[in-house]
Amino acid sequence: MLCEGPGGCLVFEGAKLRVIHAEEAGFPAFYRVVWRDHAAEFSDLDAANRTLCMEAVAVVEQCVREHLKPTKINLAALGNMVAHLHWHVIARFADDSHFPGSVWAPVQRERNAAQEADIAARLPALEAAMIERLGNRSF
Amino acid sequence: MLCEGPGGCLVFEGAKLRVIHAEEAGFPAFYRVVWRDHAAEFSDLDAANRTLCMEAVAVVEQCVREHLKPTKINLAALGNMVAHLHWHVIARFADDSHFPGSVWAPVQRERNAAQEADIAARLPALEAAMIERLGNRSF
Repeated sequence: MLCEGPGGCLVFEGAKLRVIHAEEAGFPAFYRVVWRDHAAEFSDLDAANRTLCMEAVAVVEQCVREHLKPTKINLAALGNMVAHLHWHVIARFADDSHFPGSVWAPVQRERNAAQEADIAARLPALEAAMIERLGNRSF
Repeated sequence: MLCEGPGGCLVFEGAKLRVIHAEEAGFPAFYRVVWRDHAAEFSDLDAANRTLCMEAVAVVEQCVREHLKPTKINLAALGNMVAHLHWHVIARFADDSHFPGSVWAPVQRERNAAQEADIAARLPALEAAMIERLGNRSF
């Protein structure tokens, strides 16, 4: 993994997109699928690229679900701050600091350091699976 | 349009999904694409249905962009409260009450009633276009 400073660490780089493990306090399994070419909005991609992009999101989601069994996956492409297409794929747990609110909503409870450490310990295997599955396709 | 109470009004109903205009204070152009069959997560759909679902999201996004020219589109599938696959498609404007935060983040400024009324006045034409374009495909 190449770490890119505060933004996170590169997990996978393909011809069309890359996957980053984001550093977001309280959410140890927070990934971003970033489209390589400039596109501000999802519908700026053509239909084939939209499908490709969302299949990468689905692979990331599936790996997170299989390895972490989160309460819920949250997907979002907002881009209000950085208008370059990127998808957030976030594992949410019933006792995380913001659940059931969004990660952008007000905090609901204290962070659970033990749970976060447990999740973090499982990320290397999760990311190895992600790299393998993403690498088997033309992303 | 069939209004479904506080949840919003039905804009389009297809065999696999429906589009609802949500009633969310401060966000007059807030749509939801709701998958008909039960699925908690996006990756519970097979690849063909994932593509179909996201093409409906893209049509909604395109109609919103063409008619309203928002600063940004926000897309999200969270489902922490209701774990049934639904996509939020939200037109965001630089001076809306929460921009550049997410609609779930703390308020940034007062709502702009004149802008909201102007947007609302354009929704009938937007939704007519949306219904036509969604109806031309097998959603």
